[in-house]
Amino acid sequence: MKQFQLPTFLRGIEKSPIRQITDRAKPGDISFGLGEPDLPTPDVIRREAMRVIQEEQNGYTLQAGLPALRERVAANYPHMNLSADEVVITAGSQEALYLALMTLIEAGDEVLIPNPGFVAYPTITQMAGGRAAFYRLPAKDDFSFDLEDFKARITSKTKVVICISPSNPTGRALASNDLRDIAQAVAERAPGAFIISDEIYRELYYTPERPGSISEFYPRTIVISGLSKSMSMTGWRLGWVCGDKDVIKSALVLHGYVTTCASTISQKAALAAWTTEAEDAVEQHRRIFGERRDHLVALIRGECGLRCVAPDGAFYTMVDVSRYGSSVEVAEAMLDAGVVTVPGSAFGSESEGFLRISFCADLAELGEGVKRMSVALKSLKK
Amino acid sequence: MKQFQLPTFLRGIEKSPIRQITDRAKPGDISFGLGEPDLPTPDVIRREAMRVIQEEQNGYTLQAGLPALRERVAANYPHMNLSADEVVITAGSQEALYLALMTLIEAGDEVLIPNPGFVAYPTITQMAGGRAAFYRLPAKDDFSFDLEDFKARITSKTKVVICISPSNPTGRALASNDLRDIAQAVAERAPGAFIISDEIYRELYYTPERPGSISEFYPRTIVISGLSKSMSMTGWRLGWVCGDKDVIKSALVLHGYVTTCASTISQKAALAAWTTEAEDAVEQHRRIFGERRDHLVALIRGECGLRCVAPDGAFYTMVDVSRYGSSVEVAEAMLDAGVVTVPGSAFGSESEGFLRISFCADLAELGEGVKRMSVALKSLKK
Repeated sequence: MKQFQLPTFLRGIEKSPIRQITDRAKPGDISFGLGEPDLPTPDVIRREAMRVIQEEQNGYTLQAGLPALRERVAANYPHMNLSADEVVITAGSQEALYLALMTLIEAGDEVLIPNPGFVAYPTITQMAGGRAAFYRLPAKDDFSFDLEDFKARITSKTKVVICISPSNPTGRALASNDLRDIAQAVAERAPGAFIISDEIYRELYYTPERPGSISEFYPRTIVISGLSKSMSMTGWRLGWVCGDKDVIKSALVLHGYVTTCASTISQKAALAAWTTEAEDAVEQHRRIFGERRDHLVALIRGECGLRCVAPDGAFYTMVDVSRYGSSVEVAEAMLDAGVVTVPGSAFGSESEGFLRISFCADLAELGEGVKRMSVALKSLKK
Repeated sequence: MKQFQLPTFLRGIEKSPIRQITDRAKPGDISFGLGEPDLPTPDVIRREAMRVIQEEQNGYTLQAGLPALRERVAANYPHMNLSADEVVITAGSQEALYLALMTLIEAGDEVLIPNPGFVAYPTITQMAGGRAAFYRLPAKDDFSFDLEDFKARITSKTKVVICISPSNPTGRALASNDLRDIAQAVAERAPGAFIISDEIYRELYYTPERPGSISEFYPRTIVISGLSKSMSMTGWRLGWVCGDKDVIKSALVLHGYVTTCASTISQKAALAAWTTEAEDAVEQHRRIFGERRDHLVALIRGECGLRCVAPDGAFYTMVDVSRYGSSVEVAEAMLDAGVVTVPGSAFGSESEGFLRISFCADLAELGEGVKRMSVALKSLKK
């Protein structure tokens, strides 16, 4: 009997290194691992979900999603002038990313990806037969955007550029001048390229203004986003992909064969995200995450004596542990000490020597987690 | 500016021909189109969903799904001796099919598909770079299994064989001796092949016994199924894929990058499907669908004077309209007359000349729909 052989496109592909470590959490561990808000889904969304479960039969929606929901999503990006047909509602922004990359990438195409960046970018690029190339967000500058490095990485084969702001894993946002520079560099050097803008963290910011979107500066932008992080709805699997009509039309065809449609209950409940009550909840979450951010950064710098990034958004900080060993060694020591972190190496070579710390935990847990981090560091030679 | 070009794997791929016609339904039309139960999701499942929305924060599950749910699914197939790790919970059986085919098919592999059969089988096969081959379920024998034709289609390149019982679109179930014959033929002629068994309709049957599963006869079977049809949960997107450890392990890796995990609310609520209350609801639905089946078949044969299949399961019958024109012409005339049907050509060459009629409608609607069918037929030459 022949052994099962992996198809070519899955060779070398492994479960996300984030999950590889977070799945090993023990009961009682403090979780600084997964990017998953612990704050409650706004009550108005939960009430609407309960209502539609009780009162309605929840069958398939159109594959693209509920028209009313697509209209609301389209209106989120007024400068893009989207119609509802230029939006597909997906099973979370993960599916949105999968559809966008699979639709845009042909074998041999280059995808320019931030280093460090979300682990799924190079993985799905590889599945699609593309070649991942990387632009460096230098660790020494707290992972700021580096225009010169970015320009040098764009080639005639660059088919897609991925931007994420605020960033997973760094928490840094791209400033307006960065966005302008990116748009100009891509337009000059690879005018046919699309930019995929991952905006899943865009509602969670600690800057005075909401961070901008590259779609304001570059017309061939495909936006992927969703409600997982802004509305604490990770388990609801509600995301979207929107932009160029032809790209979205093809992504929709693929979507129909991948998942048919997103959960109808999640879609109907998602309509309640465009209400004052939900917006107030997001505003409150932003404040809470902001307090946690300040508290955590102070603790890490003070108690652990470590350098870390002051995030502009999202709920991550990157902590420099390079003098204690490799990021994997340090993350393993942290896990032994009862605190789950993600080694920076999971996100690219540039963040080796760092840990990604997610602050989806209350102030008491943050305190306890940092204490355990200190214990772990003492077990490692300096 | 370069035009967006479809990647190779999506060329020639279109939206499901079922959706192409059902999306055109007008208000007031009778729907015999989509395969979507109109009966309510069992109350015990809805109550549990409402409870978890109210009382719990619904974050990500493990990518494979809730362990308790995977254990229940595994126990559904005692002869397969599955552990919970040999099950992945998916966003509906559509994702399960996508994962199974993408994981099993390498460029150039042959997939043996029933003709007629569900439209996604050849489409996803093509996306995976495989070659679709077809075994004929002869229309003249009411789409019964034909062992001689089946044997003749198996080649050394046959990597996957797809079985669906009860069948979409025919409503026919494979008898135990058919299953035994299929297993033996595949074992003899393509011993390395996997069988994908699509069992999404297996709880909906009108035969004295629940139809068997090819997995009882052929060990290298990957089962795909879910709660969409049995529990009237199409919009909840809850399915699964299970079987061979190595295949499932790879399917899980892909699943993580495609959707992360299935809806947590749907997963938690799905646990209530393994209760007496839910089983009683399924029993009741089976009775209701059985009455509709008898009523519809009598009406079509009597009022329209058309030949049609007496289904063994699912909620479809195939109606022979060949003397009125092509199946597309007749379906278009039906649509004009206010009744949505699906042309048999959507499912393969063997069902050209037939319409698939779904009986997800109450007795009054069935009566009205058949009346409109009669009107449409009168508008067509015999």
